[in-house]
Amino acid sequence: MPDNKKMVAAITSMDEDFAKWYTDIVKKAELVEYTSVKGCMVLRPYGYAIWENIQRVLDGMFKATGHENVCMPMFIPESLLQKEKDHVKGFAPEVAWVTHGGSEKLEERLCVRPTSETLFCEHYANIIHSYRDLPKLYNQWCNIVRWEKTTRPFLRSREFLWQEGHTIHATAEEAIEETERMLNIYAEFCEKYLAMPVIKGKKTESDKFAGAEATYAIEALMHDGKALQAGTSHYFGDGFARAFDIQFTGKDNKTAFPHQTSWGVTTRLIGAVIMTHGDDNGLVLPPDIAPVQAVILPIAMHKDGVLEKCREVMGQLSAQFRVKLDDSDNSPGWKFAEYEMKGVPVRIEIGPKDIEAGQCVIVTRHNREKTVVSLDGLEAAVTEKLAEVRGGLYANALQNRENRTYTCKELSEITAALESKGDGFIKAMWCGAEECEDRVKEQTGVGSRCMPLEFEKVSETCVCCGKQAENLVLWGKAY
Amino acid sequence: MPDNKKMVAAITSMDEDFAKWYTDIVKKAELVEYTSVKGCMVLRPYGYAIWENIQRVLDGMFKATGHENVCMPMFIPESLLQKEKDHVKGFAPEVAWVTHGGSEKLEERLCVRPTSETLFCEHYANIIHSYRDLPKLYNQWCNIVRWEKTTRPFLRSREFLWQEGHTIHATAEEAIEETERMLNIYAEFCEKYLAMPVIKGKKTESDKFAGAEATYAIEALMHDGKALQAGTSHYFGDGFARAFDIQFTGKDNKTAFPHQTSWGVTTRLIGAVIMTHGDDNGLVLPPDIAPVQAVILPIAMHKDGVLEKCREVMGQLSAQFRVKLDDSDNSPGWKFAEYEMKGVPVRIEIGPKDIEAGQCVIVTRHNREKTVVSLDGLEAAVTEKLAEVRGGLYANALQNRENRTYTCKELSEITAALESKGDGFIKAMWCGAEECEDRVKEQTGVGSRCMPLEFEKVSETCVCCGKQAENLVLWGKAY
Repeated sequence: MPDNKKMVAAITSMDEDFAKWYTDIVKKAELVEYTSVKGCMVLRPYGYAIWENIQRVLDGMFKATGHENVCMPMFIPESLLQKEKDHVKGFAPEVAWVTHGGSEKLEERLCVRPTSETLFCEHYANIIHSYRDLPKLYNQWCNIVRWEKTTRPFLRSREFLWQEGHTIHATAEEAIEETERMLNIYAEFCEKYLAMPVIKGKKTESDKFAGAEATYAIEALMHDGKALQAGTSHYFGDGFARAFDIQFTGKDNKTAFPHQTSWGVTTRLIGAVIMTHGDDNGLVLPPDIAPVQAVILPIAMHKDGVLEKCREVMGQLSAQFRVKLDDSDNSPGWKFAEYEMKGVPVRIEIGPKDIEAGQCVIVTRHNREKTVVSLDGLEAAVTEKLAEVRGGLYANALQNRENRTYTCKELSEITAALESKGDGFIKAMWCGAEECEDRVKEQTGVGSRCMPLEFEKVSETCVCCGKQAENLVLWGKAY
Repeated sequence: MPDNKKMVAAITSMDEDFAKWYTDIVKKAELVEYTSVKGCMVLRPYGYAIWENIQRVLDGMFKATGHENVCMPMFIPESLLQKEKDHVKGFAPEVAWVTHGGSEKLEERLCVRPTSETLFCEHYANIIHSYRDLPKLYNQWCNIVRWEKTTRPFLRSREFLWQEGHTIHATAEEAIEETERMLNIYAEFCEKYLAMPVIKGKKTESDKFAGAEATYAIEALMHDGKALQAGTSHYFGDGFARAFDIQFTGKDNKTAFPHQTSWGVTTRLIGAVIMTHGDDNGLVLPPDIAPVQAVILPIAMHKDGVLEKCREVMGQLSAQFRVKLDDSDNSPGWKFAEYEMKGVPVRIEIGPKDIEAGQCVIVTRHNREKTVVSLDGLEAAVTEKLAEVRGGLYANALQNRENRTYTCKELSEITAALESKGDGFIKAMWCGAEECEDRVKEQTGVGSRCMPLEFEKVSETCVCCGKQAENLVLWGKAY
């Protein structure tokens, strides 16, 4: 069985080469496959099923807060992209251009959407006239193209999947509230469903979205101590409305410009899950988004009654869980390695002796702990074990983040912390000057990730210039 | 209330101008909005929700038959598109070409996928080696671009949404079986969930998909007597496998080429629903895909207890149905017109007298019949009414198709039938010669839609040349 050998072969260890470990997992867990177009991947069934689960949960959260899905075109005429000046400056260098339709040259080039603010604004200008038309709380799930130079599966690719929310409101207050609401939904989703702790913060001026008044983000710390931006929520003020001439007549019969937001998460979340929970045996998936939550593995499969019992248990569990029975003729050892590689949260082993005793063995993926449980009321035991995995993953990730978060008052402390303890989050005060932000980066290698919304001052003065400082900044090396 | 006036204004009547009637509905029911890119539309929340419902049901049917979703890139390098000769000939004239990434010219042009056979084949060549890797039963939900000259919302647009299934099998028999299975699933979906009768048939040689050995389709008859192809299922034989060098080692240790299929339905189904069930008051939606299945309209809303009772009923029904309560201050008459325009299958009117009597009025959209029912056990009444709508829509559509299906033995009979009774399906025998197929089109205006899989011979000879004929062809003017 040559295929099997290939699968069981160990992956590069995390400590040896984290980047290689990551790409090994992505390939061997069959999440993606490369194509002949650089930076464009195939999301294979197992990888795409993770995204479908993420979509299902998030879409439910969006709809529960009053949002509606729409579908915008994927093409943006060059002139439309140019309407908001900061926005075009930020995106034009990295868009793909369509110049021909069939054999004919187009009169105007079209870019493939790198984000859809301009399309939503054009639409809003068409459909919004009165205060009665507000707010519009729209979202779309779609593919996006940004012509990146260096690419890595999930983390940075030329085409990726995401959702982009675009909302428009009568007042600034409402729009700001929406920006915060969606940031909180993202944080809740990451912590509850991905078992990934995040820090909510505001981006500095230099790191804002092109065209935004304020950008908020959630930041997570990966296993190697690098930071990953897991979601963003932007407040636009009325800047886009002015650029696209979106106006409405208020209750007072006066015309006004509405206020907008946008917010998004991408398939990058899958990369975050890999680098937050994975280990040297492969992927480790949080139960809520795992395509298979529990895998049933028959032991001594060809002995009388084993397969029958496994099928019975499969039927018993499948109403409540996403469950799979592997009755292939691969060896149990091969199967153990395979489903560890694929990060299935719980494995259930059933052999002849177990059946005799009316029990089975449950192994939780994250800590490989074995528990013998009765086959009676197995549902409750599986529910409990999945909760254990969820809780264990979150606790481990939080522990890693705490171990790797360093509080510093001087630039020299940052350098010392990174050198002695490895990459991580730096908590340090900042005066607000862009020169200081740049200098921290130049001298220590860590950039500003965000200004946490909840924080305690760790000193009175800027870590860089020593002047008085009011903002805590979370610094780190970023994916 | 200027917005309201706009909504209540009557649409063009079907009989006066069917095409105008269609675009009026598409706009006034708020399904789509045009954009500045010709042939690319915004699917608005109400239109997109119909597609989401179609997706949900079909995706369930695909998964129940063992299919898995994947996501392929949207770009196809020109050299990859050219690998299968018939395929490139069919699609190259209508693709959009990306020539630049950022400010740099690409070394090779990329087309935006007009369909993804070539991408799936490249992927299959990478992942299929042994009989153990077969079959692969893949599907993807995505956007597609074809640079059409004339466009109409849902029916023909430059960008549209669809699903494309791509499967690969060890034997021809398995692949043929899959082709038929998916044709049957499409037919079942259309008849059961869209209440739209369809005829399953095989396409003639001249009408096959570019690169297929055989193309099957389901054909529906629209209200104006024109035919609409609602879904297709293709059998490829091993032609693509040979072109892309996909080979596998069989159980017998010999290498062989696998056999493939592809199959798809698009947002065109929404156009089919409009033209099958709509009337002069607007859209009429089959309950299974209606974003709102029942709308609750308070009568004399500001009288004591009316709104409270409506909210209570809303809570009662919403566990089981997609239901909406319109408590806006628009008049009941305006609301009646609005939800008729939007094709909501069932409307529930609740006023003070109804409440006193413990009852409400249910009106079914397709026939505007009123029934007074008790508020006790309203769920059962709504279930029954929705079934009535479903059944009524199907019966009406079938009746229309039967009224407009003409059996003809001579070309002159075709012309006479179309002239006296209007457009419709023609059932007539065909000898199999392409010249006859072309001549029927030239002389009568109807083209071959398909050769129905189930049929009785209507004569012994070809409707065109008079030679012996074995095939019944369904002819019609097509969307």
